[in-house]
Amino acid sequence: MAAANPSANPKPGAPEAVLTSRCFGGTQYVFRHRSETTGTDMRFAAFVPPQGETGKRPVVWFLAGLTCTEENFTVKAGAQRVAAELGLVLIAPDTSPRGEDVPDDPDGAYDFGLGAGFYLDATQPPWARHYRMESYIIRELPEVVAGAVPADMTRQGIMGHSMGGHGALTLALRHPGRFASVSAFAPIASPMNCPWGEKALGAYLGADRAAWRAHDACALIEDGARLRALLVDQGTADGFLQNQLKPDLLEAACAKAGIPLTLRRQEGYDHSYFFIASFVEDHLRWHARALSAAAS
Amino acid sequence: MAAANPSANPKPGAPEAVLTSRCFGGTQYVFRHRSETTGTDMRFAAFVPPQGETGKRPVVWFLAGLTCTEENFTVKAGAQRVAAELGLVLIAPDTSPRGEDVPDDPDGAYDFGLGAGFYLDATQPPWARHYRMESYIIRELPEVVAGAVPADMTRQGIMGHSMGGHGALTLALRHPGRFASVSAFAPIASPMNCPWGEKALGAYLGADRAAWRAHDACALIEDGARLRALLVDQGTADGFLQNQLKPDLLEAACAKAGIPLTLRRQEGYDHSYFFIASFVEDHLRWHARALSAAAS
Repeated sequence: MAAANPSANPKPGAPEAVLTSRCFGGTQYVFRHRSETTGTDMRFAAFVPPQGETGKRPVVWFLAGLTCTEENFTVKAGAQRVAAELGLVLIAPDTSPRGEDVPDDPDGAYDFGLGAGFYLDATQPPWARHYRMESYIIRELPEVVAGAVPADMTRQGIMGHSMGGHGALTLALRHPGRFASVSAFAPIASPMNCPWGEKALGAYLGADRAAWRAHDACALIEDGARLRALLVDQGTADGFLQNQLKPDLLEAACAKAGIPLTLRRQEGYDHSYFFIASFVEDHLRWHARALSAAAS
Repeated sequence: MAAANPSANPKPGAPEAVLTSRCFGGTQYVFRHRSETTGTDMRFAAFVPPQGETGKRPVVWFLAGLTCTEENFTVKAGAQRVAAELGLVLIAPDTSPRGEDVPDDPDGAYDFGLGAGFYLDATQPPWARHYRMESYIIRELPEVVAGAVPADMTRQGIMGHSMGGHGALTLALRHPGRFASVSAFAPIASPMNCPWGEKALGAYLGADRAAWRAHDACALIEDGARLRALLVDQGTADGFLQNQLKPDLLEAACAKAGIPLTLRRQEGYDHSYFFIASFVEDHLRWHARALSAAAS
């Protein structure tokens, strides 16, 4: 029984709060808005810490994994407690466009289409019209966020889980200077080299694997993209570790490129939000350190 | 994508682990077992803290509210972090029997039947056969728990939310000596005096309101039942505050009976798990203090 307090008269085009809940002295919102980029209504979650009442605060983005929405991280990770202490705004977008005219996996599989946008702009029909999650998150959503909550857009960090870990890595690598801090939980390290990624990149971007390199963290690093530093947690009991996630590939790419990677193999942890909840405090403190050092 | 590791060959009658996830250095389980009391399969969640590896630990029960299962508290409250620090086992039962032959609200309403067992043994047909949540939680489930996890059943505390706050209060009042510590989040303070309670007690227990007094926290206190102390948090922006929860009735009953009640009216908080997550640490520390003082 969650209470919702929709804002009374949202301006046309402005995000409408469909959830407003006090949380750890701050406020947890879920907003709905019309996206020009995806051509759909979109939802995102935003936590504003208590310090947001007196000024703009640094932002940490969380990109979620396959099957998720803006809700999973927001209700399961327990991140608001630490964000309230550190004075961080948390933004959790949805993982794909949604709506009656948005095409889905023809077989209804969980790993493609709805809930599986892979944080890129599709180039292939019928996906190219709505599946434009990179442009949405990099160009449109930051403006919407800045208009809705006290977010200091000069200080942004990004993290994500699984497909969202892929998203955090690739968006940070593709947009140098945008994110002062990057981390991931059990990321898909190289979508070109796993079944989830091959299916998604093949459909969204077409059969030419050369085009995939621009959306593969390891290939981006091989091709010269850089991060200042990177924190990754990976559970050793994660059922997707060997076949889909392959952190060894990221470790090798970072080592070769001289990117300081802190890769922590967490003994016995699986792929669930119980794993994320256990280590999200470390990640938020990692981001807060980098963001407090970043120019304000 | 939560991983599940069902135990390979559970003994007949023994609980089967349908989820086993590492969490804050301990283990989050969900068990399924056949209940003789309810005549159905039942599920419950159990968190075992790291200290459980070397000995039995005190237990804190969490009873959930309307529409919930064992899952809501387990994934939304963020309680494992604190339980891991304090060395507490957390047990979250389901809120009603479930199954094809279990009757539900004839109109499918959320506030009665499935997900709404009210932590009592129904006396009226057709509910009396399966809706026996008090006997299940007080008599059967503790034995199942003790056989499955390192729980010190001589040191038990109980808390709950909304309908589960009613459950925590009434079970503690009805079973003196069982629970060394009691707390609640936004409890239904007096089901005899609110629409949710009148509907449920009338159907489960029949039209004679005299029979309801034994399952109403305020009436139990008026009739002589006592608690050593009580902690209650209540959000002031809770949409159910005036019509259903009525903490003023509990405050008056405790004052008259001399029960030390700490009732905290939390400004701006609603009825959601964001409210519970914000204050669950205080509750667990309250329980840990009482349970460490209790005889081991």
